[in-house]
Amino acid sequence: MPLSRKLLAEFLGTALLLACVVGSGIMGVKLSQGNDAVALLANAGATAGILYVLIILFGPISGAHFNPAVTLVMRLRGELTTRDTVAYIAVQIVAAITGVLLAHAMFDLPLIQPGTHTRTGAAQWLSEGIATFGLVLTILLGLRHRPTTIPVLVASYIFAAYWFTASTSFANPAVTIARSLTQTFAGIRPDDIVGFAFAQLVGAAIGLFVANAIAPGGRQGQST
Amino acid sequence: MPLSRKLLAEFLGTALLLACVVGSGIMGVKLSQGNDAVALLANAGATAGILYVLIILFGPISGAHFNPAVTLVMRLRGELTTRDTVAYIAVQIVAAITGVLLAHAMFDLPLIQPGTHTRTGAAQWLSEGIATFGLVLTILLGLRHRPTTIPVLVASYIFAAYWFTASTSFANPAVTIARSLTQTFAGIRPDDIVGFAFAQLVGAAIGLFVANAIAPGGRQGQST
Amino acid sequence: MPLSRKLLAEFLGTALLLACVVGSGIMGVKLSQGNDAVALLANAGATAGILYVLIILFGPISGAHFNPAVTLVMRLRGELTTRDTVAYIAVQIVAAITGVLLAHAMFDLPLIQPGTHTRTGAAQWLSEGIATFGLVLTILLGLRHRPTTIPVLVASYIFAAYWFTASTSFANPAVTIARSLTQTFAGIRPDDIVGFAFAQLVGAAIGLFVANAIAPGGRQGQST
Amino acid sequence: MPLSRKLLAEFLGTALLLACVVGSGIMGVKLSQGNDAVALLANAGATAGILYVLIILFGPISGAHFNPAVTLVMRLRGELTTRDTVAYIAVQIVAAITGVLLAHAMFDLPLIQPGTHTRTGAAQWLSEGIATFGLVLTILLGLRHRPTTIPVLVASYIFAAYWFTASTSFANPAVTIARSLTQTFAGIRPDDIVGFAFAQLVGAAIGLFVANAIAPGGRQGQST
Repeated sequence: MPLSRKLLAEFLGTALLLACVVGSGIMGVKLSQGNDAVALLANAGATAGILYVLIILFGPISGAHFNPAVTLVMRLRGELTTRDTVAYIAVQIVAAITGVLLAHAMFDLPLIQPGTHTRTGAAQWLSEGIATFGLVLTILLGLRHRPTTIPVLVASYIFAAYWFTASTSFANPAVTIARSLTQTFAGIRPDDIVGFAFAQLVGAAIGLFVANAIAPGGRQGQST
Repeated sequence: MPLSRKLLAEFLGTALLLACVVGSGIMGVKLSQGNDAVALLANAGATAGILYVLIILFGPISGAHFNPAVTLVMRLRGELTTRDTVAYIAVQIVAAITGVLLAHAMFDLPLIQPGTHTRTGAAQWLSEGIATFGLVLTILLGLRHRPTTIPVLVASYIFAAYWFTASTSFANPAVTIARSLTQTFAGIRPDDIVGFAFAQLVGAAIGLFVANAIAPGGRQGQST
Repeated sequence: MPLSRKLLAEFLGTALLLACVVGSGIMGVKLSQGNDAVALLANAGATAGILYVLIILFGPISGAHFNPAVTLVMRLRGELTTRDTVAYIAVQIVAAITGVLLAHAMFDLPLIQPGTHTRTGAAQWLSEGIATFGLVLTILLGLRHRPTTIPVLVASYIFAAYWFTASTSFANPAVTIARSLTQTFAGIRPDDIVGFAFAQLVGAAIGLFVANAIAPGGRQGQST
Repeated sequence: MPLSRKLLAEFLGTALLLACVVGSGIMGVKLSQGNDAVALLANAGATAGILYVLIILFGPISGAHFNPAVTLVMRLRGELTTRDTVAYIAVQIVAAITGVLLAHAMFDLPLIQPGTHTRTGAAQWLSEGIATFGLVLTILLGLRHRPTTIPVLVASYIFAAYWFTASTSFANPAVTIARSLTQTFAGIRPDDIVGFAFAQLVGAAIGLFVANAIAPGGRQGQST
């Protein structure tokens, strides 16, 4: 598979993912009369639905990372060259921003609107660390034990993590950067990006370590 | 498989789909005390549920298009003759209207009620274009990579698209025509049909183009 | 498989189904502050969840009918003797009533409380006819095209049908009888049983006829 | 598989399960404006999602019990030594408590807060008995008839049982103990632990008995 095609897959997948995360948040808030739990149910359900789809569509092409933390973990496992890792991450960030702009355009909102939603402090960072730890564990043990279920696994995990973490589980540095460009439901202040991204990478590293401890010897199943 | 049986499958599937889309919208609004997010959750969940069922039941008979945009894409891929294409589309339109009438009859409402819900403008058209682009990409890459998951893929995609597009994702010209005959939750003004249908066909064409670019060489999997 | 074991499976499955239908309705209304759409979302989701489980657990033993309309259709297809048909239906009715009593006991309510929820008239009967037509079509075409999906198919169909029919889709004469013993969310007036049951049987018969028309020659797949 | 690795799997799975049960309850209440049905929908959906994930990740390592009642049933079926049974149960209790502390830390709440939610009386005990009876039946007949579906089966069952039992289905003595340490949505008074645990063990024993009666001769399928 040529790199250009992999990057196109990462671009389409990440852009559609962000269009869905931000768009469904906007729609949820617009319709829910201030009941944010209903908005988050819609947001989590739509995100799970699109994740399932995008991982099936693009997994066989690029691995369907859509996430620099996942790409770095795969680099550490030796499944990606350094050059490809850099290209993946650059494309993921550009695509994530594109997806946010698309969502704003669909809902007829200003295209760029620097986030104002404060998300900082130890509890938020712990939330992001656990969220990303769980995501990496899900991917690595899922690939090992039942790789064909990865699309449902990731969708189910993210649905749950939207609810059980106090940060609604960004768990993705590219997503975090892109969501700093919206003032809607899914937004985050630009100042809070670094703390989130750091917590995510620490969580991912611990996830990689624990996956190796509990299931040593590399993966056995077939990647989807 | 004789054409008559295929057309019967398209008729039953499209009629039941519309009865569900319109009926669940009516029920949702009736019960949700003005919280339209709850109504849309029910509407999206019911639509996803019935799509999964109808694609499994009728896919092996007619391909389970239920959608002129999908039928035209399949024609361009050479999987349908021109004659069958015309017959499919005619039946889909008649069936979609029948489904709306059934929903009205079940809820004891006037059978024909020209839609009053305004849905027009660039943001709405962009929404329909993206919605149909995503649907066609889902079907074509899904058929290529994991065809047995098509029923879940389409259901999951439509659930997400109801939420992340500003138009709640009609993504189907026959559905658009039929929904112009109801004043309930799922309705649309007759004047707005043309803009929607045009945006849908453009989105479908781009979806076909991108699917060919990212996964050239025709489909490899087994059709469901 | 001895008949006694089949009847035990039908008993357990039908009783747990009704405990869930009625119990989740009670819980939904208790918690939803009068927003009946949220209660019906919970009711539909719980019913779909338990149906999936019960069909997997008891399908290989008794066929997991839990429904006299389904049992009669299977009798007409020659898959059951007349004696077994009578025994199945008797057990289904007793079990359904048992399930309602269990739900009342769990929620500390009077065990028997004749239903007061009026459900009658042409629109309601049309709803029940379509609901049962769709259920029988789902089962017969599902068994033919992809029998291992029957548990998900029936669960998805019923989730949708709770929402798109005006009657919330009883689609089951034993369930209708049992639900006449509760005044809670899922109840029905005893006077309205006959109309519902008649509409259900007509819908089931049409479903059997249409399934034969669209996919003649008996079933081909393996039963679950 | 060395015991230490099994215990690590039970620890991670049970801790993440409780973090999700308690965390999603906190988030649900925080956002739902007093509409507890929406909070319970989120709570049930998140719990089902994480259960599906955790059973796939840890099932092949430890069996993914996460529940002393399940471990005892497996001991009675001879699939575990007494020593391992004791170790499993001890780890499950410690892990469940750890999960509650994690949820409190993520939401910036006091780490230990003895539960004040009264859950006692015959109706509650009947609820827990039926909930655990159904869970054991689901696991044992599921393992026998279609073991690869166990992750979806348990998730679907628990989603339904949250709604159809008056106690929201703890169905797990370790979970009950841990939930006595929170005053949030999912909490229970310490005084009510014994009644719940006793009812759960009785329900589990009846489930084991009925599973043997309806499907004698041990399990036939492959364990996941």
